[in-house]
Amino acid sequence: MFAKLFANATVAHAHCDLYCGVYDPAQAKIEALSAVKTAKKYAESDDEVFRARCISIKEEVLEKTKHHLMVLWADFFAPPHFEEFPQLHELFWKATHQAGEAKKSMDPAVGEQLLAYIDEIAEIFWKTEKAQAMGVYPPA
Amino acid sequence: MFAKLFANATVAHAHCDLYCGVYDPAQAKIEALSAVKTAKKYAESDDEVFRARCISIKEEVLEKTKHHLMVLWADFFAPPHFEEFPQLHELFWKATHQAGEAKKSMDPAVGEQLLAYIDEIAEIFWKTEKAQAMGVYPPA
Amino acid sequence: MFAKLFANATVAHAHCDLYCGVYDPAQAKIEALSAVKTAKKYAESDDEVFRARCISIKEEVLEKTKHHLMVLWADFFAPPHFEEFPQLHELFWKATHQAGEAKKSMDPAVGEQLLAYIDEIAEIFWKTEKAQAMGVYPPA
Amino acid sequence: MFAKLFANATVAHAHCDLYCGVYDPAQAKIEALSAVKTAKKYAESDDEVFRARCISIKEEVLEKTKHHLMVLWADFFAPPHFEEFPQLHELFWKATHQAGEAKKSMDPAVGEQLLAYIDEIAEIFWKTEKAQAMGVYPPA
Amino acid sequence: MFAKLFANATVAHAHCDLYCGVYDPAQAKIEALSAVKTAKKYAESDDEVFRARCISIKEEVLEKTKHHLMVLWADFFAPPHFEEFPQLHELFWKATHQAGEAKKSMDPAVGEQLLAYIDEIAEIFWKTEKAQAMGVYPPA
Amino acid sequence: MFAKLFANATVAHAHCDLYCGVYDPAQAKIEALSAVKTAKKYAESDDEVFRARCISIKEEVLEKTKHHLMVLWADFFAPPHFEEFPQLHELFWKATHQAGEAKKSMDPAVGEQLLAYIDEIAEIFWKTEKAQAMGVYPPA
Ligand code: NI
Ligand code: NI
Ligand code: NI
Ligand code: NI
Ligand code: NI
Ligand code: NI
Repeated sequence: MFAKLFANATVAHAHCDLYCGVYDPAQAKIEALSAVKTAKKYAESDDEVFRARCISIKEEVLEKTKHHLMVLWADFFAPPHFEEFPQLHELFWKATHQAGEAKKSMDPAVGEQLLAYIDEIAEIFWKTEKAQAMGVYPPA
Repeated sequence: MFAKLFANATVAHAHCDLYCGVYDPAQAKIEALSAVKTAKKYAESDDEVFRARCISIKEEVLEKTKHHLMVLWADFFAPPHFEEFPQLHELFWKATHQAGEAKKSMDPAVGEQLLAYIDEIAEIFWKTEKAQAMGVYPPA
Repeated sequence: MFAKLFANATVAHAHCDLYCGVYDPAQAKIEALSAVKTAKKYAESDDEVFRARCISIKEEVLEKTKHHLMVLWADFFAPPHFEEFPQLHELFWKATHQAGEAKKSMDPAVGEQLLAYIDEIAEIFWKTEKAQAMGVYPPA
Repeated sequence: MFAKLFANATVAHAHCDLYCGVYDPAQAKIEALSAVKTAKKYAESDDEVFRARCISIKEEVLEKTKHHLMVLWADFFAPPHFEEFPQLHELFWKATHQAGEAKKSMDPAVGEQLLAYIDEIAEIFWKTEKAQAMGVYPPA
Repeated sequence: MFAKLFANATVAHAHCDLYCGVYDPAQAKIEALSAVKTAKKYAESDDEVFRARCISIKEEVLEKTKHHLMVLWADFFAPPHFEEFPQLHELFWKATHQAGEAKKSMDPAVGEQLLAYIDEIAEIFWKTEKAQAMGVYPPA
Repeated sequence: MFAKLFANATVAHAHCDLYCGVYDPAQAKIEALSAVKTAKKYAESDDEVFRARCISIKEEVLEKTKHHLMVLWADFFAPPHFEEFPQLHELFWKATHQAGEAKKSMDPAVGEQLLAYIDEIAEIFWKTEKAQAMGVYPPA
């Protein structure tokens, strides 16, 4: 069941570098969820056209995931955050790299690992003071 | 205060037509919020470069808003929804058209009206059964 | 025969929201025609690479079709038009939704139905006074 | 008067390299017309925001014009055409280069010269046998 | 061996029409090299997903190749260059058209011919005085 | 003098995640050079249109710079590299963040600092064994 997949997940969104002051890991998360669901639908189908579309659409939503992650990493987080959360650079590398892995694989587990990384990032995001002013979908 | 702007707002997200089965008015909403904040920052600045960037970045986030609205309208909602919510076509037209108006204006009120339309759409979205399975950020 | 396909078709073009004042259903129509021809070529080929390219190129031209339709709907047509042509909202929904259906199917008939909707839109377009000033390819 | 601008103009359209078999100089022409109208509206306005949008939207429609020209040149026209119409390479260079010039200038005359080049291309396009099968909007 | 492929190749780069004054055939060349390597990897794989991705990624890098070629042709080179190098228009047509051919084929030789054309263009590029001021990666 | 700007610079290029096996910091570098030159031309001009175009074109080339940096960071470099070059994560953050700063500023020095970071990345890139097989423009 997909609903279970993000049942306990921290909500997550992301944004641009005007900077406009709106950031939320949700943007990365929605695209990554789309990739996971697409991988699952691919496995359940034997329609050549549908499967080909799954591969290219998954590619595209994961590229968007990478973009949204880059925005959060380079534009929202600042040196004091990297001091406070010393694992943050590596966590972003893992998430961005994992999005590339998820392009290569139709195994939903690869995308679910990506979601797990995004949730870790979201958890840190919502611990910052900056997120209180700039985030949109705080965890309930 | 920006926080006040969406204090009582229904959460809102949106997505693609594989269809992957992930939809959420949040995507439209985040971009529209970015447009509103950008309009406000424009008004507070007298830096020529910053103001020029505000105009073009607002253009871009509103184009994304329009795209996310189109996806919700054409891919998520189906004939039975339009019967149940007879104002839905017109509401989507108003929202999409308003995004165009918000490109033309630096008055934050124009973007706030867009947000109001997106919130109306989100409210309807979350009333549907389909949204329970496919939405990501249900209202708290 | 493809020539027959649009023999009696109303010409059709589409455009952006500056607004610059140039609109024509032709833009939507050319992309939709490309989708139909691509579906036909797909059926006639057994080259794996060609067929894969057909699927993704059709996807892309139909996304452009959707975009051009959205521009016509939200930027060219205005409330008085929706009063005069009460079926217009639904017609645009059907056309935009059908473009999504045409992404999913390699059956040229699905794209031909899309063309039929675009032709209906074009017919209404050319009945408006606004189109006289802003259209580019009026029906012969 | 804009209507006068293309009163005697040969119709003109353009397309992709599957190849799908749909080509028409109309695509290049519609974007170029949009650039000309935008330049004219720029001259008539003293609204800072509107003028800034004119500059960037004109940039974008001219980039699309260049793209559509490249498709016609590299994908539709073939060596026998270049033998039959020896000026064709240079004509395409002039048109594509002129689109760049039209980005740099707000003088509508620069865009009108671009339209004139596109019309020359369209005239040659419609003289070819290939255009009978692949064109969409033949001159009336 | 891929290394051999460009062992004696003239370096090659490309750019935009502000104009900013930075041009280099390297941009076209890197994308074209990516297409060749992708075609080779396609031949060596029997993974359905990998092969589908090869087809669409090759498509994309070749589209970028075409774009970079168009920029060099229309923005960098000027009438005096076309007089001095009378084959230049045809050479650009061949290169741009060959990029289209390379989209259609998984035979690396098709992409290698594209590289050969780009190298010819690069050789002429670096013979111009303009390239001394605007090029970035002159041949060693 | 611009020529001086990159006189002793390490060459630098970048690429996609098929992965096709072509990577080079040159791609990031060419876009960043374009941003620096654009900032200089902006300072020398008092043409309103030219200056507006400088702002938006610089925005675009810097967005491409960020993209190329992300590809190098997430797709080319791997955990062993981050162990060998412990400053690499932070260096990439600084470069990507600096590209955002260079969007905000018309001071060429901001872009020159970006170039300095890209050169540091390129120097590390060319020290890796992987670059010998996958790089295109090694330092002379
Ligand atoms: Ni933003
Ligand atoms: Ni989707
Ligand atoms: Ni327009
Ligand atoms: Ni085509
Ligand atoms: Ni440039
Ligand atoms: Ni690559």
